[in-house]
Amino acid sequence: MLKANIETFLACDASYEEAGIVLYGAPFDSTTSYRPGTRFGSRAIRSESYGLESYSPYQDRDLTDYAVFDAGDQELCFGDASLALKDLRERAAEVAGDGKIPFMLGGEHLVTLAPVQALAEKYPDLHIIHFDAHADLRDDYLGAKLSHACVLRRCWEVLGDGRITQFGIRSGDREEWRWGKEHVTTHPFIVDMEVLQETLRKLEGKPVYFTLDLDVLDPSVFPGTGTPEPGGISFEELRRAVTQICSAARIVGCDVNELSPALDASGASTAVACKIVREMLLALLGNPKIK
Amino acid sequence: MLKANIETFLACDASYEEAGIVLYGAPFDSTTSYRPGTRFGSRAIRSESYGLESYSPYQDRDLTDYAVFDAGDQELCFGDASLALKDLRERAAEVAGDGKIPFMLGGEHLVTLAPVQALAEKYPDLHIIHFDAHADLRDDYLGAKLSHACVLRRCWEVLGDGRITQFGIRSGDREEWRWGKEHVTTHPFIVDMEVLQETLRKLEGKPVYFTLDLDVLDPSVFPGTGTPEPGGISFEELRRAVTQICSAARIVGCDVNELSPALDASGASTAVACKIVREMLLALLGNPKIK
Amino acid sequence: MLKANIETFLACDASYEEAGIVLYGAPFDSTTSYRPGTRFGSRAIRSESYGLESYSPYQDRDLTDYAVFDAGDQELCFGDASLALKDLRERAAEVAGDGKIPFMLGGEHLVTLAPVQALAEKYPDLHIIHFDAHADLRDDYLGAKLSHACVLRRCWEVLGDGRITQFGIRSGDREEWRWGKEHVTTHPFIVDMEVLQETLRKLEGKPVYFTLDLDVLDPSVFPGTGTPEPGGISFEELRRAVTQICSAARIVGCDVNELSPALDASGASTAVACKIVREMLLALLGNPKIK
Amino acid sequence: MLKANIETFLACDASYEEAGIVLYGAPFDSTTSYRPGTRFGSRAIRSESYGLESYSPYQDRDLTDYAVFDAGDQELCFGDASLALKDLRERAAEVAGDGKIPFMLGGEHLVTLAPVQALAEKYPDLHIIHFDAHADLRDDYLGAKLSHACVLRRCWEVLGDGRITQFGIRSGDREEWRWGKEHVTTHPFIVDMEVLQETLRKLEGKPVYFTLDLDVLDPSVFPGTGTPEPGGISFEELRRAVTQICSAARIVGCDVNELSPALDASGASTAVACKIVREMLLALLGNPKIK
Amino acid sequence: MLKANIETFLACDASYEEAGIVLYGAPFDSTTSYRPGTRFGSRAIRSESYGLESYSPYQDRDLTDYAVFDAGDQELCFGDASLALKDLRERAAEVAGDGKIPFMLGGEHLVTLAPVQALAEKYPDLHIIHFDAHADLRDDYLGAKLSHACVLRRCWEVLGDGRITQFGIRSGDREEWRWGKEHVTTHPFIVDMEVLQETLRKLEGKPVYFTLDLDVLDPSVFPGTGTPEPGGISFEELRRAVTQICSAARIVGCDVNELSPALDASGASTAVACKIVREMLLALLGNPKIK
Amino acid sequence: MLKANIETFLACDASYEEAGIVLYGAPFDSTTSYRPGTRFGSRAIRSESYGLESYSPYQDRDLTDYAVFDAGDQELCFGDASLALKDLRERAAEVAGDGKIPFMLGGEHLVTLAPVQALAEKYPDLHIIHFDAHADLRDDYLGAKLSHACVLRRCWEVLGDGRITQFGIRSGDREEWRWGKEHVTTHPFIVDMEVLQETLRKLEGKPVYFTLDLDVLDPSVFPGTGTPEPGGISFEELRRAVTQICSAARIVGCDVNELSPALDASGASTAVACKIVREMLLALLGNPKIK
Repeated sequence: MLKANIETFLACDASYEEAGIVLYGAPFDSTTSYRPGTRFGSRAIRSESYGLESYSPYQDRDLTDYAVFDAGDQELCFGDASLALKDLRERAAEVAGDGKIPFMLGGEHLVTLAPVQALAEKYPDLHIIHFDAHADLRDDYLGAKLSHACVLRRCWEVLGDGRITQFGIRSGDREEWRWGKEHVTTHPFIVDMEVLQETLRKLEGKPVYFTLDLDVLDPSVFPGTGTPEPGGISFEELRRAVTQICSAARIVGCDVNELSPALDASGASTAVACKIVREMLLALLGNPKIK
Repeated sequence: MLKANIETFLACDASYEEAGIVLYGAPFDSTTSYRPGTRFGSRAIRSESYGLESYSPYQDRDLTDYAVFDAGDQELCFGDASLALKDLRERAAEVAGDGKIPFMLGGEHLVTLAPVQALAEKYPDLHIIHFDAHADLRDDYLGAKLSHACVLRRCWEVLGDGRITQFGIRSGDREEWRWGKEHVTTHPFIVDMEVLQETLRKLEGKPVYFTLDLDVLDPSVFPGTGTPEPGGISFEELRRAVTQICSAARIVGCDVNELSPALDASGASTAVACKIVREMLLALLGNPKIK
Repeated sequence: MLKANIETFLACDASYEEAGIVLYGAPFDSTTSYRPGTRFGSRAIRSESYGLESYSPYQDRDLTDYAVFDAGDQELCFGDASLALKDLRERAAEVAGDGKIPFMLGGEHLVTLAPVQALAEKYPDLHIIHFDAHADLRDDYLGAKLSHACVLRRCWEVLGDGRITQFGIRSGDREEWRWGKEHVTTHPFIVDMEVLQETLRKLEGKPVYFTLDLDVLDPSVFPGTGTPEPGGISFEELRRAVTQICSAARIVGCDVNELSPALDASGASTAVACKIVREMLLALLGNPKIK
Repeated sequence: MLKANIETFLACDASYEEAGIVLYGAPFDSTTSYRPGTRFGSRAIRSESYGLESYSPYQDRDLTDYAVFDAGDQELCFGDASLALKDLRERAAEVAGDGKIPFMLGGEHLVTLAPVQALAEKYPDLHIIHFDAHADLRDDYLGAKLSHACVLRRCWEVLGDGRITQFGIRSGDREEWRWGKEHVTTHPFIVDMEVLQETLRKLEGKPVYFTLDLDVLDPSVFPGTGTPEPGGISFEELRRAVTQICSAARIVGCDVNELSPALDASGASTAVACKIVREMLLALLGNPKIK
Repeated sequence: MLKANIETFLACDASYEEAGIVLYGAPFDSTTSYRPGTRFGSRAIRSESYGLESYSPYQDRDLTDYAVFDAGDQELCFGDASLALKDLRERAAEVAGDGKIPFMLGGEHLVTLAPVQALAEKYPDLHIIHFDAHADLRDDYLGAKLSHACVLRRCWEVLGDGRITQFGIRSGDREEWRWGKEHVTTHPFIVDMEVLQETLRKLEGKPVYFTLDLDVLDPSVFPGTGTPEPGGISFEELRRAVTQICSAARIVGCDVNELSPALDASGASTAVACKIVREMLLALLGNPKIK
Repeated sequence: MLKANIETFLACDASYEEAGIVLYGAPFDSTTSYRPGTRFGSRAIRSESYGLESYSPYQDRDLTDYAVFDAGDQELCFGDASLALKDLRERAAEVAGDGKIPFMLGGEHLVTLAPVQALAEKYPDLHIIHFDAHADLRDDYLGAKLSHACVLRRCWEVLGDGRITQFGIRSGDREEWRWGKEHVTTHPFIVDMEVLQETLRKLEGKPVYFTLDLDVLDPSVFPGTGTPEPGGISFEELRRAVTQICSAARIVGCDVNELSPALDASGASTAVACKIVREMLLALLGNPKIK
């Protein structure tokens, strides 16, 4: 008898119950101010992971040895950001409430606000590590408070000063840079492994949400994104950094966002996203601080 | 001394004061449920009109003989449909208040609601002629009332029964088709010139808003749209129909929407949109019922 | 508790047991002689069906009212056509053995041979209705007997003279055309509805396999195929013809093949395939001759 | 011993001596005013003809039975139109001087001027049949006399009044249309087979140059061109017309131009060009008026 | 009252009078020998600058604090290089004559000849700093003296030996390399910051024209160009170098050329061009040697 | 009299007799498990080499000074890997039998097996240097032994332990990595020039086959391949390495494979392949160990 067609990222075919990490897609891009299309990011990561092996020679681990559940994409309302965020908040709360780690695939960066709000309730001392080309610290964008350009500002309103550490930022308006200096820790332009390790030492024992806007990568590596910002980091720099973070921090939730697959018809950007997600998963699965 | 770089559709370089028709772009697509990108439609129509002549051999008229003003694209907030619609409503009200015809270039179809609301205040007996592949008559879409899939339903709430006449509709859910039979006049699948002329006779003297969703065209003619629906009309059928409407009806406002230029890299869809806009303008400019 | 991510064509979410029709993908294109890529056809039809309604205004039927099962894509071996065909034959035999109709989504046209072989065992008087731009009647292609260019010839070896009726053929080498005149019935260039109805009358009561190579359509309608052959039929001609066949013939199996989605980045070709599959399904589901 | 890699259109592998028709490419597009790229047209027609059969079921003739020589692309200087035209004129003169028919593949339409000049020396009573969307009758374009937009005007300067018959024209500035009415015969918008046959009767016995700008086709059929002009003819209309012309007129030279292959990534436009060239060749080869 | 639609690069909305730098586009590519399309480069830089901030965190300067005028694209004749260059020369002479710095956006590299000729009249001791993958030192290209492949040779004819310093060159025919060794200073393959600074010291006080062919970048960073030449420099290397030059040299004119936006559909190449132009402008605006 | 249209890579226009190196294309990709299209790789390398100079400033050598023969593409049967390999084996045997070096352009990597088999007969102590992102050491792929994913395993069956040295490998399933450690020498992730030189010293005097899967490059440099694997080497690293190998090893055959040109519409990947082939040819032509 034929079975239903279940589609997952790579070998993430565990049941919800047995899984410690729960992948899900947040296909939303309504507030994107320039070129939309990240709504198809999570779907592309799932379907194109077929071109990747489940085994990582970097970490010598294989996803087939672990239990990860992939819930597919959530159905979200376009054009009403607060409605979409409400549904995403409930999802993150449910997963975290069941003692699992929510691993969200965007979508635009605004979606990060939902799990941060949900996890801040469970972990009042939540910290954020933020990789991005853009500061995302505006107070509003053309009057809208719920915009991808404001998402870390909204997260700050939840968490307060001293909780957000940014890496790789190389774009923002003058006011964002000024404001950021007072309220968050920004390591601009690059991702220095020593600075990162120092950050991880400071966050030792603290619950950490890791949000990765893939446009922190140079557009030569990752052209498939709405607002390519030249001057970013290389794939190897990112791979090493995310492995370090997911291996060593007490991650309680994370996301990977801003892949807009149709903008890079070669598929290379999607392949980058797939491989980063695999390395993050394998590092989390080997991280002794996580359950 | 060098002059500023003013960009307009074709020869639409009149001043606002002297113009009887005012073109403007509504670059909004936040509620698009499938593939976004129509936000770049108006800009593409403007810049690619360079490949077209200002003279129409069909109507033997030349845009260089008339005064049309092109205001460029309005800056609209993404992710907050009510905010965007408010700005668009003010624009339409201003143009109509100055005794000019607003001619809006979308953007997704939701933007039509704004000028319809504005014009219905000025013309309480406003009627709508609606060309589209999709009925757009849902009451809500995943909970959102302000969605491209609901725009004619929202217009109906403004105008009431018997005011909307649809042509070319070939898609909708069962409930939309059922509801439509009771509240609007729908001529499905095709645009029959005799039926159209009969419609125009019935609307004789009435103020008419003409809203053209370009996906009424077959995707072979117009693949550059978010939700291509096979089985549509040909370019010549559309050209003849819009010329007839704009020549004979008492048009008080109109729009052309749903071009998503990046989806058709050949540029043919944009060329179709440009030529239809030119023919509509020339027909309006020769229409004796319009001032 | 979150559920697994099951992906199906439109509303084809019945269980295998309750379904009378079984959709499945045959992602194979190894023998394609020109531009490959049809291996991604079935996956695209499934995922892009999201842009289509489950309700057909043409037939006034809704897929949500019926039970169809979508088994997803079969995993097939590339580079070894006989191995792939063996797996496909077993699948068709299983579905037909369970009293259900196999509805296969290609893939290249060679895959048709598998269900024809399986069904010819169950229905020794099987007939084929074949829509295509190409005759596919070569004896071999560069030495290979198992090639997309030979598939109807291989079917003929199973069924014999007088069992194959072709429509829309407009390409082939001189020898194919000569051979075809002796062994199959070919109605070249067009699909004439009267000729089709006469064919259906002749096949009254006979078990029929319907194989649809979508390149029977003109490339303006369906550019997303490996070997576009100008001069084909329109979408409306195909829609009417397939509705007629699936409503009136005693269909025991069918397939739709040769969509190569990446060749038409606009998505219009995939939308055509999706809509034709929906219309075929709804016609089959309303066909009294089928169970 | 391995042989050199000779590349030709389809089966056009005769030697120059034995051939009655000489194909060659004119890869030039320097004067193109909008989107360049036709320089790659002839190369694409040659290499993509692989997807086409040498046998035509329309005419029941096979290119393998005839002798056509394909000389490949001429090397032309970009940026200096008069230099390029000089080289092209010498080529046409050489081929015609050897008693063969030059069949040129563009490139932009300006290249037509070269064989017309060369053939007018040999045939003082030369006539032109011109298929195009654009009149190409400007006196100059931004000061340049040698421009694709002026090519038929330049041809008229060679031949004089009453020698040029245009079909399918649907674009031009007002002055071109006015001028054209006095000096050439224009059948606008469509290609009427009766009007065409009447034209052929009038040209009975006269030497005819046939120049085909493929943008006479509707952009749905042929989007791969620099200036798509909606409202053109269908593939079948063009196929029938060119077959008629090449079968019945005393053709002394011809060209097919304005394919810009990169603008239609699906390859459908190139397939259209290939098939039209094949049908033209087969009709010429069966035309009793041509030696 | 609605205002005209003025389009400029980023915040370059000063009037001509108040501006010290004048941006303008030179949309010309008629002599391009391989893949054309740079004619759309300046327009793309202007319209896609929307995705970039006016503030540079590298230089801590904001374009909104300065006065730059953007004159848009000049209308140039295609197919006649000398006519186009004449118009460009007049433009550069006018701008320089008004005591402003011409900043030209190509177009192909040939356009550089025009401002060099104009500025050499005003500054007889003019020097050129030239970044490029290609030497551009041929004496002619297929007989044409006015070709993108010869532009620095033509500039040399204006300026003489010892005035041109090239960086990053990695392609040319053998004769170009030989000739270059005698007449210009070439630092091949890379852009060494120490060598660059030494060059700037040598040019201290001299009027410098800086011409940047963006294909000096590696094609991984900048694939959107007609003749990608692998092995180039990185974005960061270029950003640092242009900032150095524009901050420290006595620049009297400059250009950025060879973006062919349609060749990189991801938009990353255009984003690179936009960001380099922004950094050059901000460095020039902070350069004390410039008025 | 016009000459036939012979198409070759760059200046490789020698006759077969005089040539010491024979280029030929192996347009086969039937076993590709993910995205096909490498069948067009060799053709693209040949036709796009037009954008490259025949002179290398890196090696100060010019292809016009040497005799290389380009035989064009072999006609291979799709869908039957053993048939295709047989034809390719005969080709390699013929070329090697005539005392020339076969230089094959893929196609997918499976084609490498053919020349390895042919050359192992002539050179029983044949060694392989293998650059790749993927180990290609599976025993079978979905049951098929002849698959691109197994090609080095098949080569090992011909040559035995200790004959294969791999560089740059960063993907494979766990079993491939385990098996590889026992039977071949793998230098994963990078290409270290010192390790390479040590390898070359060890292979001093031994006949070497060099097989280059271009996906060893990072996808930022070479996105045009079926299975992009992020984390690869740069163009300069590859250029230096292949120059070293081809200058210093006793190469008896080589290949460059896995370019899938349509996946990178910018053409940058094809340009990379062309330049690498040029540098390999020039290094081989200057290598004193080769005849």
